[in-house]
Amino acid sequence: MTARLVDSLATTAPLAAIFADESVLQSMLDFEAALAAAEAQVGIIPQGAADAIRAAASLGETFDANAIAEASRESGTPAIPLVKALTSKVAAADAESGRFVHWGATSQDVADSALVLTLAKARVVLAGDHARLDKSLRALSERHARTVMLGRTLLQPAVPITFGLKVAGWVAALARGWARVDAAFDAALLLQFGGAAGTLAALGDRGPAVARELAGALKLRAPEAPWHTHRDRLAALVAALGIYGGSLGKAARDISLLMQDEVGETSEPGGGSSSMPQKRNPSACAIALAAAVRLPGLVAAYLAAMVQEHERAVGGWHAEWPTIAATVQTTGAALAAMAGAADDLTVDADRMRANIERTNGAVFAERAMVLLAPRIGKEAAQTAIAGALDRTRSTNQRFATLLMENPEIMRVLSQEQLRTLETPEDYLGSAETMRIALLG
Amino acid sequence: MTARLVDSLATTAPLAAIFADESVLQSMLDFEAALAAAEAQVGIIPQGAADAIRAAASLGETFDANAIAEASRESGTPAIPLVKALTSKVAAADAESGRFVHWGATSQDVADSALVLTLAKARVVLAGDHARLDKSLRALSERHARTVMLGRTLLQPAVPITFGLKVAGWVAALARGWARVDAAFDAALLLQFGGAAGTLAALGDRGPAVARELAGALKLRAPEAPWHTHRDRLAALVAALGIYGGSLGKAARDISLLMQDEVGETSEPGGGSSSMPQKRNPSACAIALAAAVRLPGLVAAYLAAMVQEHERAVGGWHAEWPTIAATVQTTGAALAAMAGAADDLTVDADRMRANIERTNGAVFAERAMVLLAPRIGKEAAQTAIAGALDRTRSTNQRFATLLMENPEIMRVLSQEQLRTLETPEDYLGSAETMRIALLG
Amino acid sequence: MTARLVDSLATTAPLAAIFADESVLQSMLDFEAALAAAEAQVGIIPQGAADAIRAAASLGETFDANAIAEASRESGTPAIPLVKALTSKVAAADAESGRFVHWGATSQDVADSALVLTLAKARVVLAGDHARLDKSLRALSERHARTVMLGRTLLQPAVPITFGLKVAGWVAALARGWARVDAAFDAALLLQFGGAAGTLAALGDRGPAVARELAGALKLRAPEAPWHTHRDRLAALVAALGIYGGSLGKAARDISLLMQDEVGETSEPGGGSSSMPQKRNPSACAIALAAAVRLPGLVAAYLAAMVQEHERAVGGWHAEWPTIAATVQTTGAALAAMAGAADDLTVDADRMRANIERTNGAVFAERAMVLLAPRIGKEAAQTAIAGALDRTRSTNQRFATLLMENPEIMRVLSQEQLRTLETPEDYLGSAETMRIALLG
Amino acid sequence: MTARLVDSLATTAPLAAIFADESVLQSMLDFEAALAAAEAQVGIIPQGAADAIRAAASLGETFDANAIAEASRESGTPAIPLVKALTSKVAAADAESGRFVHWGATSQDVADSALVLTLAKARVVLAGDHARLDKSLRALSERHARTVMLGRTLLQPAVPITFGLKVAGWVAALARGWARVDAAFDAALLLQFGGAAGTLAALGDRGPAVARELAGALKLRAPEAPWHTHRDRLAALVAALGIYGGSLGKAARDISLLMQDEVGETSEPGGGSSSMPQKRNPSACAIALAAAVRLPGLVAAYLAAMVQEHERAVGGWHAEWPTIAATVQTTGAALAAMAGAADDLTVDADRMRANIERTNGAVFAERAMVLLAPRIGKEAAQTAIAGALDRTRSTNQRFATLLMENPEIMRVLSQEQLRTLETPEDYLGSAETMRIALLG
Repeated sequence: MTARLVDSLATTAPLAAIFADESVLQSMLDFEAALAAAEAQVGIIPQGAADAIRAAASLGETFDANAIAEASRESGTPAIPLVKALTSKVAAADAESGRFVHWGATSQDVADSALVLTLAKARVVLAGDHARLDKSLRALSERHARTVMLGRTLLQPAVPITFGLKVAGWVAALARGWARVDAAFDAALLLQFGGAAGTLAALGDRGPAVARELAGALKLRAPEAPWHTHRDRLAALVAALGIYGGSLGKAARDISLLMQDEVGETSEPGGGSSSMPQKRNPSACAIALAAAVRLPGLVAAYLAAMVQEHERAVGGWHAEWPTIAATVQTTGAALAAMAGAADDLTVDADRMRANIERTNGAVFAERAMVLLAPRIGKEAAQTAIAGALDRTRSTNQRFATLLMENPEIMRVLSQEQLRTLETPEDYLGSAETMRIALLG
Repeated sequence: MTARLVDSLATTAPLAAIFADESVLQSMLDFEAALAAAEAQVGIIPQGAADAIRAAASLGETFDANAIAEASRESGTPAIPLVKALTSKVAAADAESGRFVHWGATSQDVADSALVLTLAKARVVLAGDHARLDKSLRALSERHARTVMLGRTLLQPAVPITFGLKVAGWVAALARGWARVDAAFDAALLLQFGGAAGTLAALGDRGPAVARELAGALKLRAPEAPWHTHRDRLAALVAALGIYGGSLGKAARDISLLMQDEVGETSEPGGGSSSMPQKRNPSACAIALAAAVRLPGLVAAYLAAMVQEHERAVGGWHAEWPTIAATVQTTGAALAAMAGAADDLTVDADRMRANIERTNGAVFAERAMVLLAPRIGKEAAQTAIAGALDRTRSTNQRFATLLMENPEIMRVLSQEQLRTLETPEDYLGSAETMRIALLG
Repeated sequence: MTARLVDSLATTAPLAAIFADESVLQSMLDFEAALAAAEAQVGIIPQGAADAIRAAASLGETFDANAIAEASRESGTPAIPLVKALTSKVAAADAESGRFVHWGATSQDVADSALVLTLAKARVVLAGDHARLDKSLRALSERHARTVMLGRTLLQPAVPITFGLKVAGWVAALARGWARVDAAFDAALLLQFGGAAGTLAALGDRGPAVARELAGALKLRAPEAPWHTHRDRLAALVAALGIYGGSLGKAARDISLLMQDEVGETSEPGGGSSSMPQKRNPSACAIALAAAVRLPGLVAAYLAAMVQEHERAVGGWHAEWPTIAATVQTTGAALAAMAGAADDLTVDADRMRANIERTNGAVFAERAMVLLAPRIGKEAAQTAIAGALDRTRSTNQRFATLLMENPEIMRVLSQEQLRTLETPEDYLGSAETMRIALLG
Repeated sequence: MTARLVDSLATTAPLAAIFADESVLQSMLDFEAALAAAEAQVGIIPQGAADAIRAAASLGETFDANAIAEASRESGTPAIPLVKALTSKVAAADAESGRFVHWGATSQDVADSALVLTLAKARVVLAGDHARLDKSLRALSERHARTVMLGRTLLQPAVPITFGLKVAGWVAALARGWARVDAAFDAALLLQFGGAAGTLAALGDRGPAVARELAGALKLRAPEAPWHTHRDRLAALVAALGIYGGSLGKAARDISLLMQDEVGETSEPGGGSSSMPQKRNPSACAIALAAAVRLPGLVAAYLAAMVQEHERAVGGWHAEWPTIAATVQTTGAALAAMAGAADDLTVDADRMRANIERTNGAVFAERAMVLLAPRIGKEAAQTAIAGALDRTRSTNQRFATLLMENPEIMRVLSQEQLRTLETPEDYLGSAETMRIALLG
């Protein structure tokens, strides 16, 4: 079983598998096997011991995840029962070799390195989904480069924009967000190996050599020193995921708002209702918005754990696994949901234009202001425009029509200016220039 | 399987079982069975349908948790696939009855009610552990009513207190904390039942009657109205757990600090080290401190989800399950760990006294000030005391001895006053009165 | 100056004044004056000293808030420079009396008690605004008991509700929320008085007597013992404010969504735009939503500070003032804004009905299901309804009209049933019963 | 007045001045003046108007911060009353020019750009303090490259390390942290300029040209497009500050623990106590730890605000100013405090060695294990070492001495090995290599 029902909206099948016990245990065993191999290579333990350890370090009935989880609550770390179980298995096969299991390492070395190996697997999944989402959204932006719609500020109609520009805003934010995540993964995917208090003292002066071999075998970078209580690089990853999730949430909010029946401009495939046949729910947006709601708290929990005592901490470190696992999976759930939504997003360009129309030109009041203020002064312009807006609301007539009833305005503006006042395409400013720059 | 390794330090076996799929699914099925029974009782659906639904509403191969989890990501809720699976199972047995599954209810009705049923089970576990911890700590406080130790402020020696008083402070905070949790459970363990938009319209005017029957059957209270988007009562529970966890963390911090080898005043049973034979680690404290680190972020995540749109929300609700499950389990892990630690806490009263002694009387400087200031004025007293303290530090002589070398002090203080100046028992103020009041 | 521009949307004028330096300093001085008076009363210090201290303990040029703030960064608390300044002022008037300033107290005694006095003032402001908001919303609910509108779930039309019911949901959540805040104020408004390490040792056995006098003079309750490192009661207050703010945010979200031009069902007075003459912005909602965004993090910050070491903490306590001041003011800003919005909320009942109408009856699909499923079976009903819904969307015809074209439906439903199928008033279920219960 | 007392531990004098009203208002006025100049340059408004605006855009009695703060609560932004006040002032001098104030801009353009200008000033302060802290700590690490001390894990003695290595760990984490902050400042210090809905429509096709001029004048970079609702770059800055603050907190925790009287290895200058003459409090650590407690919640608050609607948000944006101002100032307070502490940190190398000594060699148990396990097997080694450790504890004899009483051990280890077993300098592994690498 890979996903729990209580977490089902906060993960995906591939990510749940990566954080499942089998995967985590195997990552821990991979560390132990690679450690023994590296130490044999450097001449610290016998090659035979390394071979025996590698042979034992694969999942099977010896490693009972439930028993290890239970025992971890006694020792404060899953590493101790895991190492004990591995030692028993090795020793059962070869008593001599048993003594070299976990040689020179500390619990947190295996726990942290296993975490990092797990994160490396998760990165691949996230990267794939980001690429898919990015591609869909870029195509969507191109497709709607000229699709005019209402710009909305404080949830009120402002002036026209293009849907292509709106989507390009999402694309650029997500691209920046992914670049941060990607860089943070690069910086954080480091071997942890320091021994009892981070000096690798048990290995004499051969610690760095073992660390290099070990890192190479695990395809991780070797840091300058262990980072048992310096968690900033993982914190930066968690924060980058939180920020990326925030940008996903922004796009999801926009889509869910545009999908309101009264707005009706976009629609994600969504899900049905258990009671109402007519409904199509923005379920992908719901998952992404839920992630955006949870992530800030998860980031806070991770950052709060940074104050770690001395060489290995009491409590700070112990808080991290559930937090980071939840952060990665929640972000991944949002990303997968939005990638799915973007692939199949319906856009109703007619409705977009109609929603501009139904303001009766009121959203062109700023435009009128820009035209009139230099000609008749700001106050006179304000008075004229406010009067026309009031009548637009009360009579349902067009704003431009009402302006034309004002002789002073007719005097300073041309027929052409008034005729095109309410043409959205003529009041897009630098929308297209910006859109191209954002996709840049 | 009940606990995942990544979460192993953030739950306990009983709590993991309560939030496991079997338990959650059964709670959902219990709701559906009880709903059908209530509707039959009130005459809305046939009794035969209710019987068929009850017969089908027990776990078994029909309900594949993994498949339901997977499908929940399409529909945005586990309720829809669960209801679908239940409907199929009922219909397979009796086609007529299938149509009455989930009658008049909405997805969130079953999801929220199942959550509440799950919380009711968790409450029993937490209550038991709290009672055990409370009892142990009260006995500990009584046992050490007269055990003097250093009071410490900003991690520096201040003036003497008793260990009994310190423990009584933990007891009182945890008692207040549990009272809040308990009251919050009382307020939050409510049936959720509102149908499509919370009016129970599908039941005509018989909604409240069904709700009463249903609540009774599930042993929950019926609220005045559905609370689909009013989450304050659950938020209050989550917050109360967070606060209780904060008080557990405070006790754990104190114990872990007292357990430092250089302090050596208390010791929890703890766990060993994977590399260092001499070590005893405060692993219960580590679990409790880890919880205290994570809980504020979890509380934040829950509170952030409170801004829920209209009659049922997009995103806010969907963020809740993982957060509340993590909050309850994390608090429970801390509580179980501290209950275990309290049962077997070692207290070294000699070391406590010795740590007072090794300040050479410096911690009685305030006492000297209180004696001297009214007699020789504040400034003269400050000068005399500062001088004695300096020499205490540099010469390792007792503070009182050095004060006695000052003729002015010898003049205003009696021999008896100087002789007993450094007796901790004589400078405890109202410690015992307070201790008794705290234990209430 | 009372409010800073960077915080201007996160406070109100009265609350900014309460947390301004003058108010905070005076609260600290009030504590010192009342302490001296209580100690004179109990016979610990001379009455003359108490009189001199009271005389000096009023604001004026002696107490330079800027200098005290600056010095507080050296000593880690504003109490030390404040006490120093007060001592100088007293001693300047009467050298003898100077020595009795702050007698037997510790820095945190004055700092915490001043905080509590400040909170007591803030409580009055919040209570007044809550009462005003409660009254406005109750009247609004009554006024619109029969105003039908769309219930909306996941931002999609669901089934009809009444606006009165929606408002009653806000009222009830805010009433519960305020009850929590009020109870938390009751529990938290406690004197802090413990001396060096919380035993009041400097007062011999007369500590409790002084505490009682002091509490009485400050109109605070005296706790069983000092609570220097047990912050659960303040944490409960902060959390209660956060939860109350969440409920304010929920109401603000609803209003801001209803105020969208495309929905147009309610409108708060709001503010204008600096560029667009046609705009009316939901600025009260913006302030309330901003508070709901910030409060979870502030609550988290407060809870994170609960892990306080021993008798007085290093860091935990020092984190509290800015957090609690921000929490109270932010909640108060949201409350004042919403109280203003509620007073002048415009409701467009015609538009509410029109928005139901414009779904062409689709929101009555559940009702059709409830009528049809028992008569023709669930699957047949689903097929018929789905067909009618599809045609409703494509042809813009009414849902009931299209159902009537289906002979099987005409056979099992009466003309009357079909005629009234789309009457919102006939499908409100228990809305009014619930509304009354919520206002209860 | 620049700092409020309630915030005094969470800012510094220079940072409080930067976020004070004068500074914020002037930044807003600077934007308006530069905007007018840029628009005159590009030919959109008359040069005379730009001159008149620049002349008016300096602080003075026209701009009443309190009135603007108050009015901002009506309009939801301080920009509207500020622009109004500026317009009046310009118009009073030259009616014609008044109409060109804020031409083409929206409220958030001036508010965000002013925020960015303010952040640019704060950056300089932070950078200076970081450089000072970095320098002090590097020197400290060099000075103590060979100073042995206990490594401590879970607050228990582990194996020896050097103080130089511990400090180098702080240095490296803070250097990484500052690099993140610095990069985040680079990315975030962007002009905001988009007009009503982000298209600069009021400027026709000359928007980008004005933006370039304006950015240049304000010494900010011009982004590809406005970022009114894409807050990821500021979020990344806030998160980077939070992470940096976490690393400061880690160092502060270490120092405050080492400063415990029972440990006595380091001491910061600290502050005194209001009641206890003997005390030296770690007040710099208290400020840094307080910051580390608050920052995660502030980061969460900022991230929670990222879900911003459409082109300009309702609530999300309005939540940001207080949060970002608090984040920068809190981090800066911690940084300044720690820079001060690092400058004057006392290190007691004798006490460090003595604390190793007082374990009676127990901290060399791992070393004994490494020597013995390959020679006599892991289980035999464990038994022998555990026995010696038990007797070390009970008899207070040296661990090595007791090992020597075991004939089997005497047989496999040399006299030299046993003689040097407890020499810390001989069991430092790669401490120095790592230290050098960390200082890089």
